[in-house]
Amino acid sequence: MTINNRIQTLRKLMQKQQLDAWLIPSGDPHQSEYVAEHWKGRQWISGFSGSAGTAVVTAEHAGIWTDSRYFLQAEQELANSEFVLHKLSANPDSGFSFWLSQNLPKGSTVGCDGNLFSTSAIHALQKTLNENGISLSTHADITGAIWTDRPELPISPVFQHPVSLAGLTREEKWKAIRKEMEKIGATMHLIPALDDVAWTLNIRGNDVECNPVTIAFAIIDKLNAHLFIDIAKIDNSLQQVLLNEGVIIHAYEDLHAFLANTNEHDKILIDPDITNFNLFSAIPEKSILKGQSIPLKLKAIKNNAEIDGIKQAMVKDGIALTEFFVWLKEELAQRELTEYEAGEKLAFFRKRRGNYHGESFSPIVGYKGNGAIVHYRAPKNGSAIIKNEGVLLIDSGGQYTEGTTDITRTIGLGNNTAEEKLHYTLVLKGNIALTLAVFPENTLGIQLDTLARQYLWKANLDYGHGTGHGVGAFLNVHEPPQGFAPNLSMRGVTGLKAGMFTSNEPGYYKTNEHGIRIENLVLAIPANNNPNFLQFQVLTLFPIDKSLINFDLLSREELKWLNDYHREVFNTLHEHLDDKHKNWLQDMCTPISIHS
Amino acid sequence: MTINNRIQTLRKLMQKQQLDAWLIPSGDPHQSEYVAEHWKGRQWISGFSGSAGTAVVTAEHAGIWTDSRYFLQAEQELANSEFVLHKLSANPDSGFSFWLSQNLPKGSTVGCDGNLFSTSAIHALQKTLNENGISLSTHADITGAIWTDRPELPISPVFQHPVSLAGLTREEKWKAIRKEMEKIGATMHLIPALDDVAWTLNIRGNDVECNPVTIAFAIIDKLNAHLFIDIAKIDNSLQQVLLNEGVIIHAYEDLHAFLANTNEHDKILIDPDITNFNLFSAIPEKSILKGQSIPLKLKAIKNNAEIDGIKQAMVKDGIALTEFFVWLKEELAQRELTEYEAGEKLAFFRKRRGNYHGESFSPIVGYKGNGAIVHYRAPKNGSAIIKNEGVLLIDSGGQYTEGTTDITRTIGLGNNTAEEKLHYTLVLKGNIALTLAVFPENTLGIQLDTLARQYLWKANLDYGHGTGHGVGAFLNVHEPPQGFAPNLSMRGVTGLKAGMFTSNEPGYYKTNEHGIRIENLVLAIPANNNPNFLQFQVLTLFPIDKSLINFDLLSREELKWLNDYHREVFNTLHEHLDDKHKNWLQDMCTPISIHS
Repeated sequence: MTINNRIQTLRKLMQKQQLDAWLIPSGDPHQSEYVAEHWKGRQWISGFSGSAGTAVVTAEHAGIWTDSRYFLQAEQELANSEFVLHKLSANPDSGFSFWLSQNLPKGSTVGCDGNLFSTSAIHALQKTLNENGISLSTHADITGAIWTDRPELPISPVFQHPVSLAGLTREEKWKAIRKEMEKIGATMHLIPALDDVAWTLNIRGNDVECNPVTIAFAIIDKLNAHLFIDIAKIDNSLQQVLLNEGVIIHAYEDLHAFLANTNEHDKILIDPDITNFNLFSAIPEKSILKGQSIPLKLKAIKNNAEIDGIKQAMVKDGIALTEFFVWLKEELAQRELTEYEAGEKLAFFRKRRGNYHGESFSPIVGYKGNGAIVHYRAPKNGSAIIKNEGVLLIDSGGQYTEGTTDITRTIGLGNNTAEEKLHYTLVLKGNIALTLAVFPENTLGIQLDTLARQYLWKANLDYGHGTGHGVGAFLNVHEPPQGFAPNLSMRGVTGLKAGMFTSNEPGYYKTNEHGIRIENLVLAIPANNNPNFLQFQVLTLFPIDKSLINFDLLSREELKWLNDYHREVFNTLHEHLDDKHKNWLQDMCTPISIHS
Repeated sequence: MTINNRIQTLRKLMQKQQLDAWLIPSGDPHQSEYVAEHWKGRQWISGFSGSAGTAVVTAEHAGIWTDSRYFLQAEQELANSEFVLHKLSANPDSGFSFWLSQNLPKGSTVGCDGNLFSTSAIHALQKTLNENGISLSTHADITGAIWTDRPELPISPVFQHPVSLAGLTREEKWKAIRKEMEKIGATMHLIPALDDVAWTLNIRGNDVECNPVTIAFAIIDKLNAHLFIDIAKIDNSLQQVLLNEGVIIHAYEDLHAFLANTNEHDKILIDPDITNFNLFSAIPEKSILKGQSIPLKLKAIKNNAEIDGIKQAMVKDGIALTEFFVWLKEELAQRELTEYEAGEKLAFFRKRRGNYHGESFSPIVGYKGNGAIVHYRAPKNGSAIIKNEGVLLIDSGGQYTEGTTDITRTIGLGNNTAEEKLHYTLVLKGNIALTLAVFPENTLGIQLDTLARQYLWKANLDYGHGTGHGVGAFLNVHEPPQGFAPNLSMRGVTGLKAGMFTSNEPGYYKTNEHGIRIENLVLAIPANNNPNFLQFQVLTLFPIDKSLINFDLLSREELKWLNDYHREVFNTLHEHLDDKHKNWLQDMCTPISIHS
């Protein structure tokens, strides 16, 4: 079937069901960032493979709404079909709900699969459509009905995450969850996010690319933990362990009925941002209690065992990156190589460190102008050839049993311009300013974000992404709620607490010229002498390229931080390296003399 | 009548009207910060004279809910009555609506005068009470019914604010308002805030302490401007001017009926935060359009005429302050004087500058520990005696026809400790950091607030107030929406635009020891070379005391700013001063040498 055939088949079914528009989002029933192939219906119907975007099909129109990261890709992928690209911008009128309200006559019906939209998203959509006399139907799965070669749900084996790394037993976590439930009068808590399920049950899986999770739902009630999962993914011994600890295992598809049959005195806490609308609709209205996911809040505060594990993962990552950058230098002395090859080699070095579960996200290896494309992914064929000149940005991370990493380094390969050095130094100053911040507990991400931007702003420059995101402990590399953002997003309005673990990644991007980003992962810890103030500890261990620094622009405090950081990197990593790598690292970590 | 007699009289009337609780807030029908005596019912019923606080009377209880600024004062003023102080904190459960929901049985009725509460406040209160089975009645004015010696409404004459200072004619302002109305489909706009009315009609008055406004409502519709006011306040010639320009003058009390009789096709824009609930209730529901006040948004952007006027006011203020501080120095060399006397003398020097309409707020003259009381007001009798030692904080402002001022200076009077100098220097560094900020247009107040706190935070110190508020152009000294705040208040979440005028006033307060605050008024202007970035221009003209600076803690950039600022202060003010004052100012403005 060509894309246009699929559109025609879809329209026939829409007509039968009396739907005037059909929506296909990029989400799954768990509101995951990375979704299994089984839920890539938007890609199947449209050919557009970007990670974010919604397809809308009406009798006369087929459109894809996506953001600027994917404009080029979408135009290429949609070129041979009826699908048209709609460019999302900061203007809310650029969204598909506004388009529907403008283009459908009153009395129309829009349809979608309520499993694939969050409750919050459906409520917002309903409001816009209803104000324009359009109704919304969420009960059918038309995409699924016509999707003939749809991939099955993944069935990778579930494995335990050891208490030695998790820091808390399942029972301890449930106790903590129940304590929060009691505070708000909840008798049950529905846990739909895959990383929340993994954290709550100390289990991991391999169902989804880059995220070490298994597809499942969980419910914690006053007595039990319920796991809704394809039991084929759990071997007999793990089944026994879970049963012994009071986990009741249900079929994945039984959740809907379970929720519908809850006792009338139950108060079920659901998070509308991550609970899909069909689950929400299954629950009797008087049993619903809305609030933020409790595991989301609890797992944001890393415990000592998790922090120790993360530190071990950082050592592995530092060794792998040292090996990679030495390899890169040696190869470039002899030959040219592609961005794609560099990315593959970096994963190879990480894998050699052991307990490796793959990349924590698709690596970004962006040479020169490609580095300025914020979500660039070097294609397998035809990626840019790296030479001994210009600027190279590498943003990558690994999933180790001990922890999840995410690091960006930008390096000068030779003949670097004063402008490249200026931009690099302004980004570095921002990174250091945020690193050295001291702030009251519960300071919001938006308040600290400014520190990373202030020097770029003084040069009338800025970057179009947030300054940091939460990171899981051998879990998702993008872990809400905390972070740093210049807006009132969840990352912007979440208060920082000791134990929160985030990236610090200011950047600057000059279109077609170069991309610069310097990213470390940092842990919020109590500041000296005062439990009410926090500061950051940098956990990432890898040198920052000095060849791109304009040292005239660094203050003494900044130079001191750089020297201290490099001393720590060298002291922690050198014992794991042979002489060749040790010498290279020592050179990279040589302190800069600070004039009085 | 004693306070307890008043409570008893109130309770009798409550019983007649079948009300189980009666609320008396500090607000007026315009949601003003400063209210006329006519609306100080909460003070009359309770004896508590603080500017913020709500009285709640039930059959068994009489309470005042107020915040930490007024705890001491409230305890003193309530000592001889049945009224009990309830301390408001950041915890929402400390509010009176929570108390009512906990202490009244289901089926109770709470009453209040809907004229004195904003629509938003009543809706929030209704929600809390209704969830607890309690109803709210807003139709009676029981306080008014028993308030025998209630002051009349003020009737100060209305006067015009000249176009040369306003920058726009009435007609131009209405055109701008109508343009915004059209964008959202409004046919009428209700303007309840006194400063919005004054701005919209280029009129001023003297009905309220410190704010040069007249008590009135306005409505702009597609054709006319309506003014609801006691016509006795407008002389014949001004009546004629207004009539000629299309202003329809109504009696103040006729607004309710006017709103109730609007055409069914009217769409009336109201701002729920400043429209009282009785006015809101008078409007047919289908005619209501909720949104932010348009004059509030328009008047936040100062035009060139207003800016020129403000600059003239700043020269006056700088001269008056120079005269005051020279006087203070000379007096202190000979004698001791009180905080109250100093405040009075400062107003005397301002008044001498001409076109003076009084103080823009009650001045804060806080010596030593009194400076640490953020909203301190030196009492007429028994205020502290200022000597030639310690730290003195003076926060004051004037209302001139040309503009409104607000300045805080903290000075060392001798024998100042290293700690005083440390705190002063950290506050100064924060003030300079915010002054020197460059930032994209629409950056929020909360994003910039951090810059002013960062150095205090590094010393694990902070201050409990926002860093800045909007200031009117010969209008209210606290003018929403813009400002700098470390939270999601209106000041925190409003985006900065060129022409916005705010205070920059970080501080530090050591209880019982000293208070430090350094406040300048700053104007947001386009940054060099880039229309998308803004920076600040300091308009306040008065030296910053160097005797309290620890110069080891200042960077070269900070020293350079200080010298540049002092050069500008001296160059602008010296021609208006005699030799004695010029010499003093020159000394205060002497540049600090910057070592290379």
